[in-house]
This record gives sequence, structure tokens and C-alpha cells, in this order.
Amino acid sequence: MIQKHTSKAKAGAANILEEKTIWWDDDKSCIMAVEQTLLPTEYKIVEITTVDALADAIKRLAVRGAPALGVAGALGMALSARSAPDEGFEDAVAADAAKLIQTRPTAVNLSLGVKKVCMAMENLPPEMARVMGLYSAKLIAEEDTKTCMTLGHNGARLLPQIGTVLTHCNAGALACSSWGTALGVIRSAWKMGKQISVYSCETRPLLQGSRLTAFELARDKIPVTTITDSTAAYLMQQKKIDAVIVGADRITQDAVFNKIGTYMHAVCARYHNIPFYVAAPVSTFDREAKAADIVVEERGRAEVAEMFGKTTVPKDVPVVNYAFDATPLSLVSAIITEKGVLYPPYDFKDL
Amino acid sequence: MIQKHTSKAKAGAANILEEKTIWWDDDKSCIMAVEQTLLPTEYKIVEITTVDALADAIKRLAVRGAPALGVAGALGMALSARSAPDEGFEDAVAADAAKLIQTRPTAVNLSLGVKKVCMAMENLPPEMARVMGLYSAKLIAEEDTKTCMTLGHNGARLLPQIGTVLTHCNAGALACSSWGTALGVIRSAWKMGKQISVYSCETRPLLQGSRLTAFELARDKIPVTTITDSTAAYLMQQKKIDAVIVGADRITQDAVFNKIGTYMHAVCARYHNIPFYVAAPVSTFDREAKAADIVVEERGRAEVAEMFGKTTVPKDVPVVNYAFDATPLSLVSAIITEKGVLYPPYDFKDL
Repeated sequence: MIQKHTSKAKAGAANILEEKTIWWDDDKSCIMAVEQTLLPTEYKIVEITTVDALADAIKRLAVRGAPALGVAGALGMALSARSAPDEGFEDAVAADAAKLIQTRPTAVNLSLGVKKVCMAMENLPPEMARVMGLYSAKLIAEEDTKTCMTLGHNGARLLPQIGTVLTHCNAGALACSSWGTALGVIRSAWKMGKQISVYSCETRPLLQGSRLTAFELARDKIPVTTITDSTAAYLMQQKKIDAVIVGADRITQDAVFNKIGTYMHAVCARYHNIPFYVAAPVSTFDREAKAADIVVEERGRAEVAEMFGKTTVPKDVPVVNYAFDATPLSLVSAIITEKGVLYPPYDFKDL
Repeated sequence: MIQKHTSKAKAGAANILEEKTIWWDDDKSCIMAVEQTLLPTEYKIVEITTVDALADAIKRLAVRGAPALGVAGALGMALSARSAPDEGFEDAVAADAAKLIQTRPTAVNLSLGVKKVCMAMENLPPEMARVMGLYSAKLIAEEDTKTCMTLGHNGARLLPQIGTVLTHCNAGALACSSWGTALGVIRSAWKMGKQISVYSCETRPLLQGSRLTAFELARDKIPVTTITDSTAAYLMQQKKIDAVIVGADRITQDAVFNKIGTYMHAVCARYHNIPFYVAAPVSTFDREAKAADIVVEERGRAEVAEMFGKTTVPKDVPVVNYAFDATPLSLVSAIITEKGVLYPPYDFKDL
């Protein structure tokens, strides 16, 4: 059923994607990013030259994924500093910071990226702030890649030598500056010679699983098969899934916030005694918060009710479109971070 | 979140849809059916004048739903008898019967409808067979409506006086000759004054939940909200679902075969201690079979990988597209039939 390893797609082959998803271009003095809404049919790099354009790209999910949003927030503040006038510099930068954070209220990395660069620029004269802001933003982007590689390495040993892994949404290179978190673990396992096949849930409504995850893994020649989200439980029943691995947008003291559908997979994995792993950098942890404190972003009706211009829901029928759900930590077998693998009972104090 | 009852949408209002979905037109001497692929934007009745056209309509899911397929199979054989020549009548009819049954191998009602009409025509001279075939097919269509009304009445008392019900796919009037099974129960409850709101899962890949169920309920002014399939578990966690009710394509000694995704809802309902009901006429029961005997239909790649002409899965990535899954009876709180409500431990002998 699932694509098998062939001579063409050998585990450990040195064809792993190390391309970047979002970065700063020194020559053009702007952000460059993969325009993810065009995938999988078109791979296009776009120039983002203003904070407004970046906010729009984040809202449209042209740039998305928790770690990538952190990098986007950081680079966005470098962009802000570049264009803010000397007069009223701090106010202009603060307004841009607020604007960027508001685009995706549930994603903790975005505001963290923004705030880190703001802190680096604090109390500096505009000219120095611009230099420090850009330096700090670039550092955040580089660190993100290193973090993913380390996290991937830490998690790879949890995956079976030969087996099939289910993932949801896209926690891959396209969700980070490169390599990926959940897909980073799969990439690292593949690189060390493990024969991993992947079922990628399409992830309604925006299909990041079929458009992005399937695209990334196929490009790396890691065997991947696309399914609808509701097929996952049936494959678990058929004993076709050895582990589930997903990313996270925010981890509170008691729950993992990730793409809507994650909770359903966690419940079904527990019912079938399948390990359920979360791969996320330490920056995703929101140690002060509990699940009840978090406002889950609700997105627009059109994402569910319109598809490529076709109406699929009658006009007078309302739609509920949560971007995320909350999976209690009691359903999580392990959390893979760049600082090591955490097991229950979870204690985030030392992270 | 979910549409509330308003003065415009009073429970028990006498506005319940009693229109037919598929029937025989005596004047035109052919089958008439709602072309369901055009919903929810266009409500169109089409004439089906040949067995090939009917087979095509069934394959395209223009005519779909377990009970409606039974009626389609029956009316299809009347169509076959009408056009079969006197010479070689039985062979021609038998070939058409085989052709119709092959279109949806998992749906037991389809072959039952075909076989019932074949039996009614058995050993009769062609001229009499045509009359008996049509008479028997019309009777099956009428009985289907009566069955749904009785089934609905039987199940209505299981639903809360005020509450929210989740359903998946379309087990409504559009899946039957009229009224519906799972939606028939909701309609009957509504008609007796219960204040039921419905969450309709869109049901990937073909969106019968958003296109058909939401359309049907909205037309009846029963409050309905559309969600993606993977949102259901999160709503259960939020205590926004009081019961789940679905239809069935086939019920074996040990499992309910229904639209892919049904099993996931059953697992999540059990996890949240929410009752999980199946509404199905006795004709859906396949008392001789066990789940392991049933071949689950796999449908084409394009249903998942293409949407309204847009490619959503990379070309080199395979897709697995099961039409159904199997929910063990151990997860089913009750089965609602026209002969009464069955509870665990299930015993189908006396049906």
C-alpha cells in the first residue's frame, strides 16, 4: 500500500534537502522566502521587502510553521529597523512588532523571534540598532537550523529501524529555516540508515500535509504516501503505523498546541498503543501558561467553504475553523527537543 | 459557535424535506435522480435512461448512499428489463445485474436491490418480467421511505431534548429515496420538538458532509455547522458534542462498514464517553459475514490529489484512498433499525 524502499530510494542516501525556506539576502537587503501557497505545483522564491508584505505572507500562510515564524518574526524586525526613520525609530519599530505578533496569535515562536530582535536593539541609537537587529535576526535563523539538526539527531533513535511513521501537517524544512522538526527527526533517522516510510495526512483545510510534507519528503526520496486525515485511525487499526510524530506550535505546562487534527491522532494512537511523539525546539515551550490560558486562533470560513473558487458549503451554513487543537501531555509518549528527549512525567523546569 | 435555534428555525416546524432523491417516472419510463455532484451550488434532477448511464452515475457518486443504492439497483433492473430484447432476455438482464453490482462492491444494499428485482422476474416470460420487475422496484423504493420514517421514529428518543449531534458523510434523504437514516433520526427528533443542533463533518475526499448533509439540514432549517473531519475530536474534548450518529454501508457480525472516518469518530467518542449510534435499515445487515471477509473498496487517486482541477499532491507521491472503514461493534452504543433499537451484546439472529 505504502511506497516501499527501492534501489532508487535507498535509506541513508546523501540526497537530503538542505535548502533554506526563509533567509536574509544581503545584496537585496530584504527577506527571501519560499512562497508556500504555490506548492506542490510551483517552487518559487519571493522577495519580501516590507513588514506589511511579511504580515500578509504570514496571514496567507505563504510563510508558516512554528520555527519558521520565529525566524520570520526576527527577520521582520530587521526589515522594520532598516526602514524606520531615525526620528521616532522606537515607536515605528514597536508598531511593526505589534503588527507582526498579531498575525498569528497562538504561535509562540513568532512573538519570541520578534521580541528577541527588539531586545537586541533596545536603547541603541537607530544606526547601531539596525546593525544589531540584523545581526541578531541572522543568528536566530542560523540557530534554528542547528537546533533542528540536533533535535533530529536526538529523536532519530526513537524511530524503528524499519517502519512506518504517520505525520500531520508540515513540521518540515518548509516550517523552519531548514531541516525541520518532526520531519527533521525522520530525515535524521533516514540519514543514519533507518528504513522509514511515511504516511502524510493531507491536513485540511489548507493541505500542508499533501502540498508541503509530501513535496519535501518526495524531493528527498524518502518514501511517502498521502492520505486524508480521517484515514489515519483505520491504518492504525490495520497495524500499518508504528509511530506518530508531529511538531508543535506551543507547549504549555499541560498540553501541546499544534495543527487541528493532532489531538484526534493522539487519541487514536493511544487507543491502538502506538507511540505519539512531539518534536519541538525549546523555544516552543511556554512554561508559564496552561492550556486554558491559550486562545486558539479561529480562521476564516473560506478556507473550509471554498476550494479553488468552488463553493463546497451552502452559503447559509456556518463553519467553525480552529487552526489548532490542544493535546494533553498525558497522551504524549515523548517530546523531542534539541536539549534531549523528555519523557513523562514531564518537567520543563530545567529546559 | 454553533448556530443556535432562533425564532426562524423552530424545532418541530413542519418544514421537513420530504422530497425524493431517486424514483421512477412513469411518463418518461426512466429513472429520475438528484445529480448530487453538483450540490450544494446547483440542485438538478437528471433523467437516467440506460443501465450504463446509471452505472456511471453510481461510480461518479452522483447517486450514492447505502439505501439509495438499493433503490438505484432495483430501478436499474427495471430499466434493464425495459430495454432487454425478448431474445436472450435473461442473459441481457443478468449481464446488467453484474455490471451494476460491480460499481460499488462494498455496499450490500446495491446488490440486494438488484437481486430482489431479478428474483421477482425469475422464470417469467419477458413481457411479464418487465411488469413484475418495475412493480417490485417501485415497491422497494416505497418501502425504503417507510423504513427510514420508522427507523427515524425509533431512534429519535435516543437523542437529547436539547443538544448537539455530530454526523459524518451523508446518511440523509439524499442517501435514501427520502427522509434518511442518521439524518432521518435527527429529522424525527426535530419533528417531535427536540432542539437538536448538528455538526456536519465535511467528509474528505468527496465532501458529502458539507455539500449534501449541510445542504439538506439547512433546507429543513435544522441548525447545522460544517467542520473539517479532524475538528470533531477537539469539539468532543470541549464538551460540545452530546452524541454521534452515522449511517452504515454494511453491518457484519462484528463491525459497521461506513464512510472512511467513521472509525476515527467512534474511537474518539468512546474516549470522551459520548454515545456513538449507527442508524441503518435491516437490509444493511450482512449476517453471514465477518469484517475480515469484506473487501474495502479503494477509490482513485484523483479524489484526494486533485481538487476542482488543481493538483494538491505531488505527482510522484502515491495516495491511499479507502472508501470505507470498519468500526468494531464494541465501539457502537446502539444500532437503530426500522425493527427497533439494538443494544450490546448484539444479536442479529431475530432481525
